[in-house]
Amino acid sequence: MQLSNDQVIIFLISISVMLFSAKMLGEIFTKFKQPAIIGEILAGVILGPTILGMLSPGTFEFLFPKNSEINVAMDGITNIAVVLLLLVSGLEVDLSVVFRHRKKALSISIIGIIIPFLLGFGIAYLFPGLLGLIESQDRLVFALFIGTAIAISSLPVIAKILMDLKIFKSEIGSIIIASAMLNDLIGWIIFSVILGMIGANTNGFSFSETLIYTLSFIAFLLIAGRKIINKLISIIQVKLTFPGSVINFILILGFLGAAFTEYLGVHAILGAFMVGIAIGDSIHLKERTREILHQFITNIFAPLFFVSIGMKANFITNFNVGIVIVLLALAFIGKIAGCSIGARLGGMKKNESLAVGAGMSSSGAMGIIIGLIALQFGLINEEVFVGLVIMALFTSISSAPLMSYFLKERDKTKFRNLLQERFVFFTNESGKEKIISRLVEVASKELKLEKEVILREVMSREKNLPTGIANYLALPHAKIKIKDPFIGIAINKRGVNFDAADGLPCKIIILLLTPENNNEIQLQLLSEIAAKFRSKEQVEKLLALLNARELCAELKKLE
Amino acid sequence: MQLSNDQVIIFLISISVMLFSAKMLGEIFTKFKQPAIIGEILAGVILGPTILGMLSPGTFEFLFPKNSEINVAMDGITNIAVVLLLLVSGLEVDLSVVFRHRKKALSISIIGIIIPFLLGFGIAYLFPGLLGLIESQDRLVFALFIGTAIAISSLPVIAKILMDLKIFKSEIGSIIIASAMLNDLIGWIIFSVILGMIGANTNGFSFSETLIYTLSFIAFLLIAGRKIINKLISIIQVKLTFPGSVINFILILGFLGAAFTEYLGVHAILGAFMVGIAIGDSIHLKERTREILHQFITNIFAPLFFVSIGMKANFITNFNVGIVIVLLALAFIGKIAGCSIGARLGGMKKNESLAVGAGMSSSGAMGIIIGLIALQFGLINEEVFVGLVIMALFTSISSAPLMSYFLKERDKTKFRNLLQERFVFFTNESGKEKIISRLVEVASKELKLEKEVILREVMSREKNLPTGIANYLALPHAKIKIKDPFIGIAINKRGVNFDAADGLPCKIIILLLTPENNNEIQLQLLSEIAAKFRSKEQVEKLLALLNARELCAELKKLE
Repeated sequence: MQLSNDQVIIFLISISVMLFSAKMLGEIFTKFKQPAIIGEILAGVILGPTILGMLSPGTFEFLFPKNSEINVAMDGITNIAVVLLLLVSGLEVDLSVVFRHRKKALSISIIGIIIPFLLGFGIAYLFPGLLGLIESQDRLVFALFIGTAIAISSLPVIAKILMDLKIFKSEIGSIIIASAMLNDLIGWIIFSVILGMIGANTNGFSFSETLIYTLSFIAFLLIAGRKIINKLISIIQVKLTFPGSVINFILILGFLGAAFTEYLGVHAILGAFMVGIAIGDSIHLKERTREILHQFITNIFAPLFFVSIGMKANFITNFNVGIVIVLLALAFIGKIAGCSIGARLGGMKKNESLAVGAGMSSSGAMGIIIGLIALQFGLINEEVFVGLVIMALFTSISSAPLMSYFLKERDKTKFRNLLQERFVFFTNESGKEKIISRLVEVASKELKLEKEVILREVMSREKNLPTGIANYLALPHAKIKIKDPFIGIAINKRGVNFDAADGLPCKIIILLLTPENNNEIQLQLLSEIAAKFRSKEQVEKLLALLNARELCAELKKLE
Repeated sequence: MQLSNDQVIIFLISISVMLFSAKMLGEIFTKFKQPAIIGEILAGVILGPTILGMLSPGTFEFLFPKNSEINVAMDGITNIAVVLLLLVSGLEVDLSVVFRHRKKALSISIIGIIIPFLLGFGIAYLFPGLLGLIESQDRLVFALFIGTAIAISSLPVIAKILMDLKIFKSEIGSIIIASAMLNDLIGWIIFSVILGMIGANTNGFSFSETLIYTLSFIAFLLIAGRKIINKLISIIQVKLTFPGSVINFILILGFLGAAFTEYLGVHAILGAFMVGIAIGDSIHLKERTREILHQFITNIFAPLFFVSIGMKANFITNFNVGIVIVLLALAFIGKIAGCSIGARLGGMKKNESLAVGAGMSSSGAMGIIIGLIALQFGLINEEVFVGLVIMALFTSISSAPLMSYFLKERDKTKFRNLLQERFVFFTNESGKEKIISRLVEVASKELKLEKEVILREVMSREKNLPTGIANYLALPHAKIKIKDPFIGIAINKRGVNFDAADGLPCKIIILLLTPENNNEIQLQLLSEIAAKFRSKEQVEKLLALLNARELCAELKKLE
């Protein structure tokens, strides 16, 4: 069987139309700092039964004939596309990053899976009608699947968002990436187990066999496989043509891994993803090879796949408000709460934890892929599929702004961002109370609070325990009714007595006001400031400076 | 219609096996400095009906089931593969190179098409039985096709061979590339006309309509299209993501161009190739974009396509010695003779012309592609198809060694390569005859010829016309019975009288012996040497040198 000439023409035009629409809408979303995948799926919604199929059924049937060889050829390509997409997603996984942040990442990913999973599972199991359970279905399997769909993150989308926010290589960025990798890994294994349970494989493996073979395959790849692959890549690069042979080798391994897991009944993409991880770990893999694979696959194959997703269902007739709301609520609450709690238990600060939760909340590509597979196996109906796609789109869109918000909140508690030139002044006042009073005056203007209120709090703290620290530093402070912390600095080069531990007069007096009911921020800022004054030598250098601007700059530089 | 799970598994395995075999054999041929395409096609022969189909029909039918959706999906991919292959081949065409060498390139490509075309056409028309004309066929169309198949070159293979020989950017390399581009272009247009004649298009265009539309399309692309594309690429690169959007844009244009020419009835690849040329001409197209497209397509899609070629027929049962011999003879004689004559008429030297002929002789990828299309349209039978593939393989293999041979022959006539330290000596002899005698002595030892014979020839020339030139140079010379020219140099710092035109004594006496019956080489070398002595100043610098080694080095440097 082959494509006729006419079919080749339509096939080429369909692909062009799909690529063009996907790229155009993808670029628009990119311009608005949104992941391109959203535009790509929307392109599919427009080209698919939802819009084009409604408005011009003739054009739709001409471009994308359902019962034709063209459809088979297109299915072949989208199958390859999703395998390649997962292969490059796997390449992005950096096992050493996971290992470096293993404690936090484990805490975030495990709790970040358990909570949304239980939430999704519970709601789906207790109220299956809410999520459109099909009568004939196994309620347990259905609930397990909903739990997984809610719990899974989307490494490629998360990575893209972190890059857009320019925090991909930062501490928090690395932790989120490590957690997302683990999340993906665990999520896929759970999903594979579900597929095994419903006997998705047709090759006669029992559920336990499938599970054992799958886990053995993963263990083999992560333990021995990646070392063998690493060795092979180094040999291929030296002995054979570069980068041609390596590109070829990677794709062959990806296809074979995909074929193997498909054979096990746990879907092709798990194999491709795991092979990608094993290959990505190779120290011999060159940036040039990665670049070629990454660019060609993410710009050609990925859009083709995501467009085909948007074309899988009618997003209007299958739009069920109830299902969409329930899924969105589950995803937002479950995922953000789960991952934030995980981060907090892993030892991270409050706002950072919330940022992690927001960062992990996008289920993007992965959520859609497992939704598609579930649809194909009749595990969910089209309404739930549409709901899952919308959930993936929404969480992908909201993830970046939510994360920025929490990170900004976190940043508001940093000394660096609180210190401002206009709150710094030089004075000759030599009385402790006079100096504090002048500092409070500045604060009261800025915070629009009555001076007396602030002064009372500061002085009461001062009376209980003098705030002269050491190395010419005094740190009067108080918790008051404000939203963001305040820092003011007075400098008296002759020194004022603050009963400092080292007996020295205090020449730099820093007033620190923090929100009440928040011990954490106060402690953090107090210790941060004290740390900056650890070296007497450096403080003396500071005191040699003559204006507020230089002083602020130097203070920010101190570690 | 979609692929079932089992079909996806087999599809992925088939592609892996094809990619792996193609790369392995391709690499082996690369190791032996042969074009990879040969190994890739051989891989197809092994995986196809010829070997695997014979040895293990079960495995063959399992991996590559004929009447299955898998076959359709594979056909979709190979269709895309060949379109992409021609697109990147087009990208390699540099219109400015063609323009720079337009005179020679036009002469080489036109005569290099006419002669093999007429030869192929004549033999096929007069003795159609020799080439397996199918009874029912139009003899004229058949003969036209054979002529075209013989006349076409293969730009990608030629480019690869020139790179392997490290002469891609040299003068002769540029001329060959320019000629191959023009050859491809003209060859494809002729082939399109033939397809139009047999009514290959199903869209109701008459032959003349097809021809007019095709030529208009090409003219539009090469005149206005490439400027528009250039502009669009510059806009896309600035406004949209890079390199993603450009890669996407190029593929979309390629697919649309392919769909358009397929619609005209002149096959998809002409459109892809022309679009490739128009895009490749853009000054805004970045090297990074080219690299990604080139590497992914030539390492993944091209091997898949060439493997599929090897699987199209049984190369043993369809091996017809007569047809193979006739095609090979036609290709070698017609192509090498045609292009060499074209080069000669274009003003190139004899050995260079032969090298051009050898370089243009490989019909590689292009010959195979048009053979495949002809097979699909029933224009030729499987025996001729197999013959054409074998012809393409043979000419691709022989091209590089033949070219090296002629280039070496050419190099033997270069002063640079003839000048050797051991034939250079300093002397105090002041007599003209004595000095010539000493030079002839050196020559006689090297050439293993009697001294008297050489001396007689040299002195007889010397008596007719003294060989003192100017700027201290004397150039005694003769044509004798030798294969390669000989150069010997005597230096007398006081000077010897050679009746030079400027009245100066000659201090550098160069003996030049060239093969008899070859005026060209003698004239060329005489003028080359004389040119090196144009500047008195530089000659005086030469004379200041004290040993043969430095003198040789400096002489080689002089232009």
